[in-house]
Amino acid sequence: MHSSLFNPRSVAVVGASADPSKMRGKLLDILLKSGYPGSVYPVNPSASVIQGLKAYPDLASIPEVPDLILVAVPGAGVPEIIAEAKRIGVKSAVIMSSGVDPARVKAAAGGSGMLIFGTNTEGFYHAGHRFAATFAQVVDTYLSEGRQTAAQRPGRPISVVSQSGGMGFATFGRLAEDELDVHAVITTGNEDFLDCLDVIDYLVDEGETGAIVLFVEGFKNGRRFGAVADRAAAAGIPIIAIKVGASDAGQRAAISHTAHLAGSDAAYDAIFRHHGVIRVRDLEALLAVAAAVSRLPVPAGRRVAVLTTSGGAGTWAADSCAACGLDVPELSSKLQNEIAKLLPSYATTGNPVDVTGQAVEDGGGTLVAVLRCLISSPEIDSILVNMGLAKPDRVAKLAAVLAPLLAESQKPILFHSHISPRQENFAALAAMGGVGVKSLRAAGLAFDALARRREALSIKPGKLPSVSPNFYFAGAESGVLAEKATRSLLEGYGIPAPPTSLVTTEEEAAAVAQTMGFPVVLKIQSVDIQHKTEVGGVALNIVEDTIRNRFQSILASARQHVPDARIEGVLVQKMMPPGYEMIVGVVDDPDFGPFVVLGAGGIYAELLRDTAMSPAPIDREEALRMIASLRMSAILEGARGKPRADVEALADLLVNVGLLAHTERTHLRQLDLNPVLVYPEGQGAVAVDALAVSGPSALGSLAACL
Amino acid sequence: MHSSLFNPRSVAVVGASADPSKMRGKLLDILLKSGYPGSVYPVNPSASVIQGLKAYPDLASIPEVPDLILVAVPGAGVPEIIAEAKRIGVKSAVIMSSGVDPARVKAAAGGSGMLIFGTNTEGFYHAGHRFAATFAQVVDTYLSEGRQTAAQRPGRPISVVSQSGGMGFATFGRLAEDELDVHAVITTGNEDFLDCLDVIDYLVDEGETGAIVLFVEGFKNGRRFGAVADRAAAAGIPIIAIKVGASDAGQRAAISHTAHLAGSDAAYDAIFRHHGVIRVRDLEALLAVAAAVSRLPVPAGRRVAVLTTSGGAGTWAADSCAACGLDVPELSSKLQNEIAKLLPSYATTGNPVDVTGQAVEDGGGTLVAVLRCLISSPEIDSILVNMGLAKPDRVAKLAAVLAPLLAESQKPILFHSHISPRQENFAALAAMGGVGVKSLRAAGLAFDALARRREALSIKPGKLPSVSPNFYFAGAESGVLAEKATRSLLEGYGIPAPPTSLVTTEEEAAAVAQTMGFPVVLKIQSVDIQHKTEVGGVALNIVEDTIRNRFQSILASARQHVPDARIEGVLVQKMMPPGYEMIVGVVDDPDFGPFVVLGAGGIYAELLRDTAMSPAPIDREEALRMIASLRMSAILEGARGKPRADVEALADLLVNVGLLAHTERTHLRQLDLNPVLVYPEGQGAVAVDALAVSGPSALGSLAACL
Repeated sequence: MHSSLFNPRSVAVVGASADPSKMRGKLLDILLKSGYPGSVYPVNPSASVIQGLKAYPDLASIPEVPDLILVAVPGAGVPEIIAEAKRIGVKSAVIMSSGVDPARVKAAAGGSGMLIFGTNTEGFYHAGHRFAATFAQVVDTYLSEGRQTAAQRPGRPISVVSQSGGMGFATFGRLAEDELDVHAVITTGNEDFLDCLDVIDYLVDEGETGAIVLFVEGFKNGRRFGAVADRAAAAGIPIIAIKVGASDAGQRAAISHTAHLAGSDAAYDAIFRHHGVIRVRDLEALLAVAAAVSRLPVPAGRRVAVLTTSGGAGTWAADSCAACGLDVPELSSKLQNEIAKLLPSYATTGNPVDVTGQAVEDGGGTLVAVLRCLISSPEIDSILVNMGLAKPDRVAKLAAVLAPLLAESQKPILFHSHISPRQENFAALAAMGGVGVKSLRAAGLAFDALARRREALSIKPGKLPSVSPNFYFAGAESGVLAEKATRSLLEGYGIPAPPTSLVTTEEEAAAVAQTMGFPVVLKIQSVDIQHKTEVGGVALNIVEDTIRNRFQSILASARQHVPDARIEGVLVQKMMPPGYEMIVGVVDDPDFGPFVVLGAGGIYAELLRDTAMSPAPIDREEALRMIASLRMSAILEGARGKPRADVEALADLLVNVGLLAHTERTHLRQLDLNPVLVYPEGQGAVAVDALAVSGPSALGSLAACL
Repeated sequence: MHSSLFNPRSVAVVGASADPSKMRGKLLDILLKSGYPGSVYPVNPSASVIQGLKAYPDLASIPEVPDLILVAVPGAGVPEIIAEAKRIGVKSAVIMSSGVDPARVKAAAGGSGMLIFGTNTEGFYHAGHRFAATFAQVVDTYLSEGRQTAAQRPGRPISVVSQSGGMGFATFGRLAEDELDVHAVITTGNEDFLDCLDVIDYLVDEGETGAIVLFVEGFKNGRRFGAVADRAAAAGIPIIAIKVGASDAGQRAAISHTAHLAGSDAAYDAIFRHHGVIRVRDLEALLAVAAAVSRLPVPAGRRVAVLTTSGGAGTWAADSCAACGLDVPELSSKLQNEIAKLLPSYATTGNPVDVTGQAVEDGGGTLVAVLRCLISSPEIDSILVNMGLAKPDRVAKLAAVLAPLLAESQKPILFHSHISPRQENFAALAAMGGVGVKSLRAAGLAFDALARRREALSIKPGKLPSVSPNFYFAGAESGVLAEKATRSLLEGYGIPAPPTSLVTTEEEAAAVAQTMGFPVVLKIQSVDIQHKTEVGGVALNIVEDTIRNRFQSILASARQHVPDARIEGVLVQKMMPPGYEMIVGVVDDPDFGPFVVLGAGGIYAELLRDTAMSPAPIDREEALRMIASLRMSAILEGARGKPRADVEALADLLVNVGLLAHTERTHLRQLDLNPVLVYPEGQGAVAVDALAVSGPSALGSLAACL
């Protein structure tokens, strides 16, 4: 679909200049350096030859219709260029210019089906197609030095997709410098037309990218993200995401930079986790994880063996792995004995395995023999080798024995040097499909990412419940829902709530309470009273003796506080016994739509924000994962002699809330069930209080996505 | 004191070999390469000339008495060498050999006052004295390449002190590669005699080191650490510590590596924080923090301005700073206007300040002008500059305008390049006393370390209370203290506990309870019953009507469960109303001695280990800091409409517990006050239950440290 954009047969550079120190000259200069095999047409009315090529005064004068035009003229002139491109039948346009009115461009292209990329983009470099459409200095430098970044080594090449031009090309440079093959780097700028999700879709279709690094400040259309990420996942292409704009200042910057409203960071976290996207937060993590997922096999678990020539570095390595949630288990005595036979007597074999400097000085035979022991042992999933890589030919000298081992190994192996390593060794490792990391922290992060990838792959989508819900909100007014409507909503989705009745007389109250069983709660019911407690409109723990009295005092207090309130009556609700206190809710994220939120209740837990969230709807397995991810889950599982909570009932409730959130998403803006009381195993869970808010979606385009 | 060890006038190399590929040959080879100005005497009976120097068959044959001997003979022969050294009056010895019996060495040196360093050490390189006493390959390489690491640039040189030889010299290499001046790298090996704390003491005395990087697996004598760290701090020398062995595997490795029992990681954290030591956990942090503290001024606070040429990098920078607890505040409109005048119209000035690429292309005038605005503004404490440093002469070209600015600035400034930087630029920055960091995470970590340093410097030791305690444990038996003895202990140190009386009859119980006021608690009192609840020996919430009855039932139940128990009577204790639940205690760390521990109570808080600890004794300010460091402190301060707790009373209680812990440290092994109930402001705090354990210290050498 996008081949005319990223793989065109011919390109016109509109606004091309002869001076490569200027942006418009550099664009043509880099394109020519990139080895692009198609035709290139500079367009500029003020010259007949530009950078050795015949130049044309306008698009119509070019002897063929170019597939793609690169537009680098001042912003105000862009709509005219697009109109001309439409007239002659150009298929795609990249608009580098800033200060462009997107509406006028859209009008100019109207109905042509032209693919438009930009505005305000630094462009892209597609190394796989040998096609540079950018003025980025990094690409200029690489091409000038005759470097080649596309697939050269074993493993899968990486593509970079970035909203920020500066960070996109910087990341390209970092990856290439780290001996990683980069297939394409594509920066999307203002995304007035095509966006980064379109680019990911193209790369998945193209089928040549092994992993995608995504640098994003906020999605233009977050509701598409899940489907795009799932397509990439289905094609076996991991996405490594750097999402910036999490901090207040970052958000401020992101807003001013690309006019995106940086979405709630927690929602991004949840969406990424849900779709198996690996989120990284710093450069070291990015580079290590990119190398690991593009080159190494996925391990079966989190058990790491550390093999080291320095005791101190081995200890630090073990700490670094543990800090990333990995295990560095003591090896069995059988395995230790096996390894001990290969090593000098002063070596240690517990794990870390201190092989001593000797083991790497004998041509690598000992090192490889120990590695073979660990690779074939069922006790270990991954291996970290720490050795000095300061001599430039260290790895090259081991290549004959090491290369076959790395090619065969079904377990990921990372190499690290505690002594400042020489780049030649990392290059030699890369040439045999191996990975060297620059720090022990990076090793831990990389193994963790690989283990998470295995964990994500092992998640199979579960079944959603087969409730046939109504659309409760059809025709509902915006605002807080009446208690009765809220109760019907919960009931419609099978969410347990305490027995409740609306009554208008004290006799009725007493009779209803008698049926429910005492004690009960009384609550004033009025659309004009939101904060019932503040007007004395709630009475707890009412027994038979006091119900009539309290019925009247509630009414009186409410009337006194809000004289004009339209009072529908008094709700009689069964007083629930204490249980484990949770909070369950729905939030409507402006970027991604509804999420189910689960939190631990009680003041301490709320203060610590012990919460989990997941995009709605959710299946039962996801509900159980959400519960297990809370720090409070140990308490729910029955810590310190307390009974195990009815986790299954809580999971059912979460699934039903997810279904509600999804089905009612056009009008439900917020739902708070607070508290949800969870009782001991087999005794259920109940939403004691509920608050629902309806209203139109914050996202104008929501209807289009449904 | 140690000048004969680290700055000798003459050195004998015992076991020197002619072959520099062997350890004993390399030792001499590196020593000669280091430019050492003193006399060098190879000692080896099997040759007359070694590496061009006259060799001697034994120490006695050397024409002068060498200040220092380096011993690299097989372990069994070492005691004999030391005995010979003692006979001729050698002052210091470095024992590289492993497999040495320290007791025999000690006996051989007995009474001579000889300073002995080792065994099993990779030695040291004192660049400041141009003296290498090591066979480390890293030092060989550096000297062979003619590099000089000692003070060359503005700023204070760094010394590395490491128990691990491999990590010590690796760290030396990393620092030198990062354009940092290294004064000395000293690795202590097995520490059978002098240890890393002696080395720090020496470096402080010597007065030439600006900052110390310490790599440690565990202290041989942790109780000395505080005094040594405080001496360094008083001399203005920050210590950056990497303490490994935190994980199970790390501890396993540390034990096998240097025979240290890696101490409790939390105790190390507390001790480091208490003495202003900056703990880092990974290489990136280490290098960034070392550069920052050795070169940059300490900022007044945590407010960072981000100045960037790439919007995306600026956003990431803001996130990275925020993740390290720094603020990136929006600049005032006044300051923004001032800056805007210097920049193109499409720049943004909110913070991040996106100066655009233009601002660094004009010879640095604009960059420096914006920096001057920020340096002179009271709104900002630190500045992060992100710009492309890919061109090798980028910084050199700015030197004329940048160098004076960096020299003058009282605010720390860090430089970062989102595009792969060239080392030449970092070198040029270093030459003018500037610091370039390799990642945005590193920038955040460095600023955080500088801010912490300011915070540590601002802490003034407070006054300890003037209680005159008794030594309660003198003559006490080991084990759990009787309740009565525990109560006297608390009373002696002014720790509030509920009114309690021991009674033996029901009449007495009723009378005592009447005086205290009902309700009360009854507890069986017997040295033979530790778990009172389990034998039905506790009754809560006793009112006047029931006290006689319950008195008898408690006695009966206890007698039934433990027929032989020696029952002293029943404790009547005032039943305390509910309050904020805390846990206060004393733990006796085998490395560092007694710590005061404060934790949030309640099952949820206990599960999350919301705790703080500090070495005893503590002053009031430290007690308040401990309280403030808990996540629960927001609740104590009165979150969500609850009353503020009597934080002052809790602080008083903590100070008194600290005094108790310190005074009774020879015999107190553990104290648990659980719960301590803290009441609303002005209403105090009370230790409802107490458990004290006495016994001899786990540390044999404790008495010597008192």
